[in-house]
Amino acid sequence: APKKLLVLPGDGIGPEIMHEVRRIMDWMAQARGIRFDVSEDLVGGASLAVHGQPITQEVIDAARAADAVLFGSVGDPKWASAGFDRRPEIAILKLRQELGLFANLRPAKVFDSLADASTLKPEVVRGLDIMIVRETVGGIYFGTPRGIETLPDGSRRGINTEVYTTAEIERVARVAFDLARKRDNRVCSVEKCNVMESGLLWKEVVTALHAREYADVELTHMLADNCAMQMVRNPRQFDVIVTGNLFGDLLSDLASMLTGSLGMLPSATLGARGEDGRLPALYEPIHGSAPDIAGQGKANPLAQILSFAMLLRYSFDMQDEAALIETAVSNVLDKGLRTPDIMSAGRTEVNTDGMGSAVLAE
Amino acid sequence: APKKLLVLPGDGIGPEIMHEVRRIMDWMAQARGIRFDVSEDLVGGASLAVHGQPITQEVIDAARAADAVLFGSVGDPKWASAGFDRRPEIAILKLRQELGLFANLRPAKVFDSLADASTLKPEVVRGLDIMIVRETVGGIYFGTPRGIETLPDGSRRGINTEVYTTAEIERVARVAFDLARKRDNRVCSVEKCNVMESGLLWKEVVTALHAREYADVELTHMLADNCAMQMVRNPRQFDVIVTGNLFGDLLSDLASMLTGSLGMLPSATLGARGEDGRLPALYEPIHGSAPDIAGQGKANPLAQILSFAMLLRYSFDMQDEAALIETAVSNVLDKGLRTPDIMSAGRTEVNTDGMGSAVLAE
Ligand SMILES: CC(C)[C@H](C(=O)O)[C@@H](O)C(=O)O
Ligand SMILES: CC(C)[C@H](C(=O)O)[C@@H](O)C(=O)O
Repeated sequence: APKKLLVLPGDGIGPEIMHEVRRIMDWMAQARGIRFDVSEDLVGGASLAVHGQPITQEVIDAARAADAVLFGSVGDPKWASAGFDRRPEIAILKLRQELGLFANLRPAKVFDSLADASTLKPEVVRGLDIMIVRETVGGIYFGTPRGIETLPDGSRRGINTEVYTTAEIERVARVAFDLARKRDNRVCSVEKCNVMESGLLWKEVVTALHAREYADVELTHMLADNCAMQMVRNPRQFDVIVTGNLFGDLLSDLASMLTGSLGMLPSATLGARGEDGRLPALYEPIHGSAPDIAGQGKANPLAQILSFAMLLRYSFDMQDEAALIETAVSNVLDKGLRTPDIMSAGRTEVNTDGMGSAVLAE
Repeated sequence: APKKLLVLPGDGIGPEIMHEVRRIMDWMAQARGIRFDVSEDLVGGASLAVHGQPITQEVIDAARAADAVLFGSVGDPKWASAGFDRRPEIAILKLRQELGLFANLRPAKVFDSLADASTLKPEVVRGLDIMIVRETVGGIYFGTPRGIETLPDGSRRGINTEVYTTAEIERVARVAFDLARKRDNRVCSVEKCNVMESGLLWKEVVTALHAREYADVELTHMLADNCAMQMVRNPRQFDVIVTGNLFGDLLSDLASMLTGSLGMLPSATLGARGEDGRLPALYEPIHGSAPDIAGQGKANPLAQILSFAMLLRYSFDMQDEAALIETAVSNVLDKGLRTPDIMSAGRTEVNTDGMGSAVLAE
């Protein structure tokens, strides 16, 4: 039976960049006879507009039943004041939690042909290749108690709780150590153990797991504030970084921006392999929905296309097809084609569709 | 009566850079007849070694009685495994909390003569001048419940709580708006209101205060992950940033590193003016204790010297003396003198004492 693929374009530029992936899927079917069982549905603001909620139970069920989810991006200023329970962002938070997608893998890699696109000096970022493993179903994102309460004097109090258990820390650290073994064999674990007990436990659990099962991998520890600095000072010192949900949110965005080409970076969020051997997995570009340029043909579809390549590689074990797409993207960049976000002097500017066509042509 | 000044050099390079400030104080007494009532005491690892605790009640009382505190830096790897209650860092956390020092002002400014020291391209950072106002007595640093508990199955759970009240948010936002009025009149408030209710309250309270009392100041809002990105993408878009304790910790370190000269940046942490008109205030360099270079004469004393200038300006209203020191520092840099941390080709390398002497000579 063909693999089941759920496509969730979402808001903003999501639909237009996803369209370029659909064209690649069509080409795979025609030229190579590779067919997927693809269904598409609404999430985020798009779902709010139709169903009054950022994601429906049907979509969550469909995601659970799929072999992999290809996600666009959510977020729409239209819903900015719609209330905390009707944020488009809930779509991705719910998918992570309901499917148990606990490990967000975010590579920050500088493409040789784009080393100049960074705001950092080329000699600082050339060859940069960091993999951030961010925990995504725990920490302050989901801990309780949480909420806003009104105090007797009429003023208010906002509360959120950061919680991490041994098991939650271990499983995400395992992902990081396993990845490191296939890379430069170094893991840097990041927390604020000098201020937060949850960070102290994080450090202790990672250290113990390392001693028990991963002594061959080099492990270092870094405070989150220092990590933010070190990423700017000397980002190439890092191989794999493992950290909690909130620090991972900031640090992975920071790392991406070092590359200067946000529109190029894919990500995978993985769960635990089930008894049936299936790996819950969602793939998405690291960039957001960019409502300011939506519908203008300016969006860079490469991160979405590379997210699809990542999906083929990790979820469907289609190494050849994944490599084919990745090489096509490299070639297109080498030929000097650029969407506006990565445009520079002497290159050829193309729009979303033009970039998609160029990748197809390769 | 002369102003009471409490000097707390702390650990690592703290004592040696503070020594350079003491030389300036001596000069002020001799050459200008300006005398302070200075006392000096131990904090951090230095206090742990003598008193078994990172800060004694006597030192806290002395800080409370002083007109201003000049702090060096704390942190010493010797005490890394001494337990959560015996961290050198407790010294600064306790001083903030006990003196009610709720607003940490951290300027990230690029000195013209040092624009090349940044890892960012000079055209991205030249003229950069950000003021980060970080809340420092609330949020996840101090919220309860907190701790590590053992679960029935023997595994553990680490917990921290982020709490912000209307009053805590308002008073720090006020500091930011007031500062903005003396600068470029723009405030960017940073939180994660799309994920955290405490961030949602933060945004609402800042928005309401703005409408009520500061409508003349331009106010924008930014998510913390986006802010980390924007600082790398285009840091000059910011004037004043106001944010909570944890985000402020990461973002202010990040902003400092953009300048490429961490050893140059002072900070002030201010409380609420008391009924007696006194403003509780602590001044410290933004860099850490740098144990790796301690005692080698390599440390850059300028951040500590500029922290003293900030103290003269804000706490003692000695504008002329503050300007004298700041101009001396500028001149020394213009003459090409550099400690190892900011050394570059064609400049003259000096040690800690040499830099201090050069400032004195000016
Ligand atoms: C959309 C938002 C809830 C999300 C997050 O904060 O996790 C995003 O910033 C991300 O990094 O995936
Ligand atoms: C020393 C440490 C507790 C402190 C903090 O995290 O607040 C430091 O990083 C700072 O920014 O002043």
